[in-house]
Amino acid sequence: MTRVLAADIGGTNLRLAVVSENGTILEEGRFEARLSSHGQTSQKEAQTCVIQTLSKAIIPFMEQHPTPAIGIGFPGFFHGNSGVLAASPNLPLLEDFALAERLSEQLGMHVAVQNDALCAAIGEQRFGAGKGKTNLLHITLGTGVGGGLILNDSPYTGEHGMAMEFGHLRVVTKHGRECGCGNSGCLEAYASATAVADRFYLASGIKADARQVFKLACDGNKEAVSILAEAGSYLGQAIAESVKLLDLESVTISGGLSHAWEFIHPSLMNTLNENLIPPLRGKVKVLPSSLNDNAGLLGAAVIASIN
Amino acid sequence: MTRVLAADIGGTNLRLAVVSENGTILEEGRFEARLSSHGQTSQKEAQTCVIQTLSKAIIPFMEQHPTPAIGIGFPGFFHGNSGVLAASPNLPLLEDFALAERLSEQLGMHVAVQNDALCAAIGEQRFGAGKGKTNLLHITLGTGVGGGLILNDSPYTGEHGMAMEFGHLRVVTKHGRECGCGNSGCLEAYASATAVADRFYLASGIKADARQVFKLACDGNKEAVSILAEAGSYLGQAIAESVKLLDLESVTISGGLSHAWEFIHPSLMNTLNENLIPPLRGKVKVLPSSLNDNAGLLGAAVIASIN
Repeated sequence: MTRVLAADIGGTNLRLAVVSENGTILEEGRFEARLSSHGQTSQKEAQTCVIQTLSKAIIPFMEQHPTPAIGIGFPGFFHGNSGVLAASPNLPLLEDFALAERLSEQLGMHVAVQNDALCAAIGEQRFGAGKGKTNLLHITLGTGVGGGLILNDSPYTGEHGMAMEFGHLRVVTKHGRECGCGNSGCLEAYASATAVADRFYLASGIKADARQVFKLACDGNKEAVSILAEAGSYLGQAIAESVKLLDLESVTISGGLSHAWEFIHPSLMNTLNENLIPPLRGKVKVLPSSLNDNAGLLGAAVIASIN
Repeated sequence: MTRVLAADIGGTNLRLAVVSENGTILEEGRFEARLSSHGQTSQKEAQTCVIQTLSKAIIPFMEQHPTPAIGIGFPGFFHGNSGVLAASPNLPLLEDFALAERLSEQLGMHVAVQNDALCAAIGEQRFGAGKGKTNLLHITLGTGVGGGLILNDSPYTGEHGMAMEFGHLRVVTKHGRECGCGNSGCLEAYASATAVADRFYLASGIKADARQVFKLACDGNKEAVSILAEAGSYLGQAIAESVKLLDLESVTISGGLSHAWEFIHPSLMNTLNENLIPPLRGKVKVLPSSLNDNAGLLGAAVIASIN
């Protein structure tokens, strides 16, 4: 892996970095880039808009830092490692769109694109807490809950690029909280930053975001402690279901809410082990990311080199 | 694949067959072989007993039908494709036991052994309703509920040979029925033959096995119809969880209860599609085995040739 560019695309902005072969971030910048289909009417218009928005942010940075390739973690589903976007929940007009190819024409360099949570899994396995693991389940705890899976040293994408909808595993089968996907009882409705803030408000009457809930828990606020512990317990339940199917040994977790590790991890491990079949109990290790929110960016750098 | 022997080991008997290269069963026999650790005190005693019990059934058949190899579907967990038994829930004294190697010494022929449900998946993918699929989830509906997974054309075993504990996916998260594994709310407690018989008795007061419940459903018995439809619905829920993780397109089902397809399949598909994230709805095909309860036997023949 030579020195490459890496991009991690969020809802409203884009992080760009120059990453060295050993996973060191040499330069970094944060740019506004609002990806949305809002107001667009045709697929073509939506395609042009996403290419222009990304190029506008990337071109000045790449001119300052010339490299042979860029890897991008993108909030969407991709067909295998083709860089073809199958679908993106937030950009419904973009379907079966050759994003990597089109962006490559625009930028004049090699472009690799993959799902953002899968990039985080790749980064964590190459450089982070999952380093050296042949199989790894990586969970991203942010506004939503995502997952990425490495099986036999390869990123696993599924038949339609939609594998690891980890946040939509059902952890409450009756009268569960409503989820953004239209179902109810999904993990994301209990363990995302949004859900933690919302459940804390319902329990305490206090409006606070997930970061503030964490601070309140540190100060001993009982409802805050309890909501975070419950998020951990639901996470443990969803990990148990995944392990009963895939018999994995290594799980890593990144994202904002993972910083509340001391409040999440004990209940997570208890529920995980309770829910496993007896011979698997005690065999699964769950670790926080060791990459300070850079897992996705570093995974994007990896795919720029291998794809 | 040349002509080989294949064995499928149940709780109290063992099926043996000669299988041709194209998956035709040329000869078949059923033999009593009760595998149990009952009364045994040492690991060595248990090992000797399982080798002797299997040899006693296999040797006369193999002498009549000489072939270069035998493949065996066995109720236990194996380390990869090594033929080393990691553990067997029904034979707790057998741990990390080189079953294939020891049996090979005894029989004087090549022996391959793999988990019975995984053998059924292998058979279904090579010769049955999953023929030609690169990825396949196969479910066995018998006394228990098992699962076998083919990913990228290879049997998937997991880190400790314990992948696809499909019957122990949790389909009821609160106040669920107790399961033999010690947990509650497992799929097996709702969709196994045992569970169907038990739930039918609780609903109707009539003692009947799963086969009789199916017949009663055919005769229009409302409780029988409803218990089978509920089994289908819980199956759909567990398949949905698997698909949300693995984005699979092809699912096949074998085993006694799969014969009640007309009562199971409609509710299974409804619940499956309801529980999937919207872009995956309608993409998953669920088919009954096309191998007349021979999926496991044919899969055992396949592993005799490839291992």
